[in-house]
Amino acid sequence: MDQPRKETPDNRIANTEPFPGSRKVYISGSRGIRVPMREIRLHATEDVKGGMQDNAPVRVYDTSGPYTDPAANIDLKTGLPLLRESWIRERGGCDTREPGYRPVPENGASGIAFPGRRKVLCGRGSVTQMHYAKKGIVTPEMEFVALRENLPPDFVRDEVACGRAIIPANINHPELEPMAVGRNFLVKINANIGNSVVRSSIEEEIEKMTWAIRWGADTVMDLSTGQNIHETREWILRNSPVPIGTVPIYQALEKAGGRAEDLTWKIYRDTLIEQAEQGVDYFTIHAGVLLRYIPYTAKRVAGIVSRGGSIMAKWCLARHEESFLYTRFGEICEIMKAYDIAFSLGDGLRPGAQADANDKAQFAELETLGELTLKAWDQECQVMIEGPGHVPLHLIRENMEREIQVCHGAPFYTLGPLVTDAAPGYDHITSAIGSAMIGWLGTAMLCYVTPKEHLGLPDKKDVKDGVIAHKIAAHAADLAKGHPGAGIIDDAISRARFEFRWEDQFRLSFDPDTARLFHDETMPQEGSRASHFCSMCGPQFCSMKITRDVREYAESRGISEEAALEEKMKEKGREFIEKGGEIYVKKIRGL
Amino acid sequence: MDQPRKETPDNRIANTEPFPGSRKVYISGSRGIRVPMREIRLHATEDVKGGMQDNAPVRVYDTSGPYTDPAANIDLKTGLPLLRESWIRERGGCDTREPGYRPVPENGASGIAFPGRRKVLCGRGSVTQMHYAKKGIVTPEMEFVALRENLPPDFVRDEVACGRAIIPANINHPELEPMAVGRNFLVKINANIGNSVVRSSIEEEIEKMTWAIRWGADTVMDLSTGQNIHETREWILRNSPVPIGTVPIYQALEKAGGRAEDLTWKIYRDTLIEQAEQGVDYFTIHAGVLLRYIPYTAKRVAGIVSRGGSIMAKWCLARHEESFLYTRFGEICEIMKAYDIAFSLGDGLRPGAQADANDKAQFAELETLGELTLKAWDQECQVMIEGPGHVPLHLIRENMEREIQVCHGAPFYTLGPLVTDAAPGYDHITSAIGSAMIGWLGTAMLCYVTPKEHLGLPDKKDVKDGVIAHKIAAHAADLAKGHPGAGIIDDAISRARFEFRWEDQFRLSFDPDTARLFHDETMPQEGSRASHFCSMCGPQFCSMKITRDVREYAESRGISEEAALEEKMKEKGREFIEKGGEIYVKKIRGL
Repeated sequence: MDQPRKETPDNRIANTEPFPGSRKVYISGSRGIRVPMREIRLHATEDVKGGMQDNAPVRVYDTSGPYTDPAANIDLKTGLPLLRESWIRERGGCDTREPGYRPVPENGASGIAFPGRRKVLCGRGSVTQMHYAKKGIVTPEMEFVALRENLPPDFVRDEVACGRAIIPANINHPELEPMAVGRNFLVKINANIGNSVVRSSIEEEIEKMTWAIRWGADTVMDLSTGQNIHETREWILRNSPVPIGTVPIYQALEKAGGRAEDLTWKIYRDTLIEQAEQGVDYFTIHAGVLLRYIPYTAKRVAGIVSRGGSIMAKWCLARHEESFLYTRFGEICEIMKAYDIAFSLGDGLRPGAQADANDKAQFAELETLGELTLKAWDQECQVMIEGPGHVPLHLIRENMEREIQVCHGAPFYTLGPLVTDAAPGYDHITSAIGSAMIGWLGTAMLCYVTPKEHLGLPDKKDVKDGVIAHKIAAHAADLAKGHPGAGIIDDAISRARFEFRWEDQFRLSFDPDTARLFHDETMPQEGSRASHFCSMCGPQFCSMKITRDVREYAESRGISEEAALEEKMKEKGREFIEKGGEIYVKKIRGL
Repeated sequence: MDQPRKETPDNRIANTEPFPGSRKVYISGSRGIRVPMREIRLHATEDVKGGMQDNAPVRVYDTSGPYTDPAANIDLKTGLPLLRESWIRERGGCDTREPGYRPVPENGASGIAFPGRRKVLCGRGSVTQMHYAKKGIVTPEMEFVALRENLPPDFVRDEVACGRAIIPANINHPELEPMAVGRNFLVKINANIGNSVVRSSIEEEIEKMTWAIRWGADTVMDLSTGQNIHETREWILRNSPVPIGTVPIYQALEKAGGRAEDLTWKIYRDTLIEQAEQGVDYFTIHAGVLLRYIPYTAKRVAGIVSRGGSIMAKWCLARHEESFLYTRFGEICEIMKAYDIAFSLGDGLRPGAQADANDKAQFAELETLGELTLKAWDQECQVMIEGPGHVPLHLIRENMEREIQVCHGAPFYTLGPLVTDAAPGYDHITSAIGSAMIGWLGTAMLCYVTPKEHLGLPDKKDVKDGVIAHKIAAHAADLAKGHPGAGIIDDAISRARFEFRWEDQFRLSFDPDTARLFHDETMPQEGSRASHFCSMCGPQFCSMKITRDVREYAESRGISEEAALEEKMKEKGREFIEKGGEIYVKKIRGL
């Protein structure tokens, strides 16, 4: 087991390699808005006569932030540029003050604090994106999202105003490149990182964050439960271009000495404010775990598998009181709206086994989350709803339909679902299957699951495997939903494949490094990447090559005009059937 | 690139390790039938009071054959025991003769031939499982399948009789452990192996075969296109307990010097007989690629991606004649029924890109496969239909529904489908997503796709990754279809997980080795496997542990009886709402 390293992070741990054959481009909007995209250059197509036809470069959504821009000056100790600072100040409505929370230096913590401290912002009233949307205002964040997803700014505003989409963007996280979570937008994915008592360090967590967004994570949740939680989170936030989510009850429990029954509203509230001031963009809050629902889990195969859910269940039973997350929900909303932190209403009673899917406990909690959604919206707080978990394929649809109905269309954010319990070591796959399905049906964001799920803490490789598996699921959902432009990448890579433009196939793929590596394992020679066949079949058997031959033959015979040949064939077909095939059989040589 | 090794196979290449915590057991039937199963031993459950309760062992379907039975004497040079020999002889109706085909020793081939030659069987009339089923006979093969899937023998017979299921079992493959492919049976998976001009050797292929069936491959297709095709196939067949499929056009093309236009019916027919005498259990035959359909592919993004399909397309266009696979279909049926080789009617025009899915070419061919299905059934030949390919999620259902309709309920056998084109290096995942979906909808067998798809030839690791990903898809489909008993493994592993029976979780998983390895990476100490928490969260945050505490608390307080507590809580809930939560708030300490 690794020992936590104490040195402060070093730039070498950030993953700053540009993507092969790609460059960072920026789409300009009003107010100096610049939206980053990744532009992939393609080689020309060689036509049958040997002529060359250029292929336009392909632009793709880019979550990797400044890290993949060679022009950017990365310094982890300074943090990323304050992209949103002026936008937030121009809107006004905020007070500037010293952070209310002073971290007690833990054993060794003083040496690892993020350098420099800044003042924090706090809204006097509601400063949420929903607040401005309801007023009919298109904020720079909304315009940024509109350009990023090629949608009209007014559409983005209206989706946020009605609660069908959220833009998680804490006013104390000015480094953020805004993104939207909603079922009329591209399906997003979240990657969980975070240390635990058992292992990991600040450096490892920053490395995982930059690694996760490089491969497509749209948001990152810091689930740290070990040492130096505050400092780890600060380093991550100051260097993260994507929204950061947390589960505040984890840190609150640490403050309560790890004894759930000793948790108090004061400890929890102070923790919310501490994290709000740091700039956390969304909080998972398990406010739907009500005392009366807990017995519904008694007969389950896997009981309660949500950490936050089980902590609150223990608190409720130990005190025989209703959850303070529920009784104090109004006060929580007051905090959320003053920093524009989005609610991620946690599914503390989600099923942890196929046998527990769609049961009374799960759906009872969902009803309460729907009730709380309306309360949060009354305060103009942004809300998304967390979903399962472990669910067999045939029970997935009910989850989506019920969520839309009882949670009034708030975005759904699911963990998987995993479609079997029997594949530990491969749960990024069991989860990708359920995720693609529920994403197609309307889930707005998919929380990744890594191969280490149920077994251990993900390392860097697991983070990448989890992100790519769920990027596949999200993209498959986008294709099935017919999201405009979703198919561009598929058509481009299929044409590259068909035309043996190997380099283009590599750079257009979700993981160019692995695609190239796998190709070269079988055919290492540089020349083979230019060859018009591949290693699977060899030259004689390459169907792509034969298809090209067929087309060339067709052209040379002047029968490329489809209709004409088709007519001719139909005739031959009739002739063949009438004469019982004899007319052809006689012609066959070698008999 | 590896050079093909010339030595004959060595027993060390077979994968003969028994599974951890498991033993091979045999279910006895009539006529001395013994059906192999894998029995997984479980540890006892420790209840709240510290008492121990035994857990019954779990029996699972086992495709690995004698290789995982320590009592079996494996000798690759002798081959597996002739399990079916007496069954086939007792049925009679066959002539015994010398093989009609004499392999011309290729360069070095003489030294690598399988030792010893035996006589071959050929039916005088139809000797297919469908033939006997239609007569109302339950063959030993049908009884074997019935015991293996815990279904009534008559049901198996009736499914085979009506063509809704097949039992691929060539009378010259007596080593076979019979299995069924049909939508009312467990969803099966196929693994492709085979050398190519570019690489691989006989040893590698046998190693891949035993490796594939160890991890769950129900059938194996030998797609060899390189040197020593005949000898490689012989070694595989004599040592394979699962049905072996081939695509005879590949070898026929080799005989035609690699020139599609030089293929003749005679070359092809001789190749069918050569492979029939060796014992191949099913043939992929692309008889639906008609001359008049070829122009439909001209405007496709990816044209024709099926090797067999493109070979026949080239033949048809070069000669401007109808495919001999179609014109000679009746003669092909004569061969199939005399050896009981099942048809796998190939989808030579399957889409190779999302953009080409469900197009005119694909569905035109499917109609022809339906027409040929009836012709084959007239001769009592067993038939399954091959399906795509590359298909977006929302177009998958139409594939299944059309196949059932136009192919009269014959089993569907799909390659994926892959739900995006953009993830080379991860196509075992893009395929697992589509496979789970179409398996749930009724597909009977899933052809695996490995991470090397589109990039290179799979190695041993790729074979395992491909098999496990599709075993997950097949099992997820079985759960969704509600196949009796499919959920036993999920419930057992979930209970083991919940009770911290780490060893049981490992041995119940689809890949015990990887599950154990991943766990130990984070918590290597032996003791940790007995600990009541895991590496993800540490002791304080383990939701499983907290849930146990909750249950123990509930028991100790005597409030475990659900209804009673629920009533009490409802009351409290009403009280809470009436009094605006005050009653609880006052009680909370620390405020």
